[in-house]
Amino acid sequence: MKTTALSKEGFDLKIGILTIGNELTSGRIRDTNSSFIAEAVNRQGWRVSVIMSVGDEYADIRKGLDYILDAADAAIVTGGLGPTADDITTEAVAKAYGLALYTDEDVLREVRSRLERLRVAWTPNNEKQAMFPEGAMPIHNPTGTAWGFALKRADKLISVIPGVPGEVERMLPEGVIPLLKEMEPGPRTVVVGRTIKLFGLSEAKVDQTVSGLDLGFEGLSIGFYPRFPENHLVLTVRSPSEEEARKTLSDVESKVEGGLRKYIFGHDDNTIEGIVASLLTRKRLTLAVAESCTGGLIMDRLTDIPGSSLFLERGYVVYSNKSKTDLLGVPAEVIDGCGAVSEETARLMAEGAVKKAGTDLGVGVTGIAGPTGGTEAKPVGTVYIALADREKTTCRLFHFRGERRRVKEISARWALEMLRRYLTGAYPNG
Amino acid sequence: MKTTALSKEGFDLKIGILTIGNELTSGRIRDTNSSFIAEAVNRQGWRVSVIMSVGDEYADIRKGLDYILDAADAAIVTGGLGPTADDITTEAVAKAYGLALYTDEDVLREVRSRLERLRVAWTPNNEKQAMFPEGAMPIHNPTGTAWGFALKRADKLISVIPGVPGEVERMLPEGVIPLLKEMEPGPRTVVVGRTIKLFGLSEAKVDQTVSGLDLGFEGLSIGFYPRFPENHLVLTVRSPSEEEARKTLSDVESKVEGGLRKYIFGHDDNTIEGIVASLLTRKRLTLAVAESCTGGLIMDRLTDIPGSSLFLERGYVVYSNKSKTDLLGVPAEVIDGCGAVSEETARLMAEGAVKKAGTDLGVGVTGIAGPTGGTEAKPVGTVYIALADREKTTCRLFHFRGERRRVKEISARWALEMLRRYLTGAYPNG
Repeated sequence: MKTTALSKEGFDLKIGILTIGNELTSGRIRDTNSSFIAEAVNRQGWRVSVIMSVGDEYADIRKGLDYILDAADAAIVTGGLGPTADDITTEAVAKAYGLALYTDEDVLREVRSRLERLRVAWTPNNEKQAMFPEGAMPIHNPTGTAWGFALKRADKLISVIPGVPGEVERMLPEGVIPLLKEMEPGPRTVVVGRTIKLFGLSEAKVDQTVSGLDLGFEGLSIGFYPRFPENHLVLTVRSPSEEEARKTLSDVESKVEGGLRKYIFGHDDNTIEGIVASLLTRKRLTLAVAESCTGGLIMDRLTDIPGSSLFLERGYVVYSNKSKTDLLGVPAEVIDGCGAVSEETARLMAEGAVKKAGTDLGVGVTGIAGPTGGTEAKPVGTVYIALADREKTTCRLFHFRGERRRVKEISARWALEMLRRYLTGAYPNG
Repeated sequence: MKTTALSKEGFDLKIGILTIGNELTSGRIRDTNSSFIAEAVNRQGWRVSVIMSVGDEYADIRKGLDYILDAADAAIVTGGLGPTADDITTEAVAKAYGLALYTDEDVLREVRSRLERLRVAWTPNNEKQAMFPEGAMPIHNPTGTAWGFALKRADKLISVIPGVPGEVERMLPEGVIPLLKEMEPGPRTVVVGRTIKLFGLSEAKVDQTVSGLDLGFEGLSIGFYPRFPENHLVLTVRSPSEEEARKTLSDVESKVEGGLRKYIFGHDDNTIEGIVASLLTRKRLTLAVAESCTGGLIMDRLTDIPGSSLFLERGYVVYSNKSKTDLLGVPAEVIDGCGAVSEETARLMAEGAVKKAGTDLGVGVTGIAGPTGGTEAKPVGTVYIALADREKTTCRLFHFRGERRRVKEISARWALEMLRRYLTGAYPNG
């Protein structure tokens, strides 16, 4: 696998990640914290040298910590900070370095008042959550009762936070990253980043385009994150001056976006359904969707957006031929003559959605998701996607590869993409 | 976190997992192999003592291997077996133990003929894929060109397979587990397993029920896997005799299922949509679904099943009030009087689906997915699910917690559950 790292600048802090819990070593729970932390660390321009998971065992935690502090400058540890007996991380860290535990009265008060607000009864084992190894500094948990802590060992730093993903998402950037920044050698640096989100261009083509650019900027690193069916490019710039960093980032962004503009659908936290939803809302346009092979997936994604009822009038999942005729007015002769999977049917589905629902826009999708139903002329993966407004209809034919779910997902994604392109007016013909 | 391990029998083989690749330490790719392997290892009654991920670096791979062979009886290694220059796992393992590489002519021939069949041009770096450390035994890859290998070091075993999840899913059970079985001390044992899949009972209640049973069977271990919104129990029995193992498994299964029968929807590889699909197909019944707050998710899940066109006539995503009236005949007065989110509307949606689509069964779902739209009387998470046949309609009211997507998912899951219960005739009133 290739990593586009055009500059090695700034890769001067090595981090090890240790996630703790029997639910990880038993395979009961998939460890999502590690990749979240690894991505955040890389966005700072730092490097992850090892990721480890161990169960709730004193010896395993200690050995894992030793390994990480040997291999890296800092350890980020998650899990095992709850109030129950098998949450032993704090004690295990203290034992590993021969430290006693102390109770932090401020933390104790905060935990107590949080539980009171939640009307949860106080039990003695909650006191555990205000105890930390001697010399450790508590790390605030804005969303739960399990505070974390940071402990210096010689010139290395151990940061420990809970394993609940929602708490990691807050405590890592707010509590841990700032402490790690202070560890950076040399003058303090500013890190700025930008995620460019692409769809419709293969991984190889994106890589090729970016590699071909002259991007010899100091302090720049580029990460490439394939998130099927999208590709995300993460630009990170480190510089002693924020102004400098922002200028470089903006220069790089212009260069990268120049060659890829058609395929860029959003940035940073944007999602395609969120973008389409806000475009439709802003333009006060309404939509009806007629789905055959995607089976409701397009509507499912759009209705994930709060407030989608403002623009979504209705959806039709027209699985049978009869339903295509009954609900959308696709003539039985067209279905018989051209096929349920045909450009004609897709167009009439989109147009029927507009007419029957009385909306501004209509989408029609029909195809063969597989594994059966393919023919020589129309193999599995053949999908027609039509987009109609009240005046005209465009339709595109796709040949997707892969199994049933994959064909559904990429078809739904393309339908949303065609909507985005239509609504931004940039590529009216797809 | 609690692990229901009622018997420690059979936990006599300790495994370490090492996944290799820069895409893991950069957070580009989430490591799904580790939890898959950990679960498979635990199903054998063995234990995972550590999971590690390192980048494609000789020193890191070597240190990781050393750590694992010190902590465990065997290492399962994935990744870095491809033909490109940054795939260095084979060489790194050889270097770590001072071994030369040899070319296996049989593997070379197989790789060559596979590429020929796929019409992929042979390049010299493909030869790398037939090279193994001295003393290693190749492990067949049934789906790709990257063979794995197993290498003995003193009394420990290193198994190396590619990192592509689809290849791990085949090569782990077919190539690696059998080799590990041979390592077990004492007489050869047989392992049999059964997964019991539950829905509708909380994690705590399932745990409580199982803990209350007298399950003192020799060689039994029980794993508890919450897979929101379902809970899966994995029973594993190890015994020197297969007959004995199967008998114990069947006894345990009866005991466990006795107290939980209502909540058991399937076993092993069953999915709820697969079960509902096969029940409908077998009974030759047709279905139409009318969704409001689930936004197409029920249809999306059912259409994931190949052949769903046999029973799925159509789906309505009736997001607007007008669409509920137009498409399903829900009178505007009912919507105005009782509310779009009400038992009356849900029932009329299900009945309207049956009537308008001419199907045997209809489902109607309406609710408040949030985050806004809740009231004192009908807070966010209020969901009505109705199921109608041609004669009668049942409706259930739910109060779900959590954010929008979670409410959609659990609502869709309950709709499928109500279909399953209706179709099996066991709990006609839900």
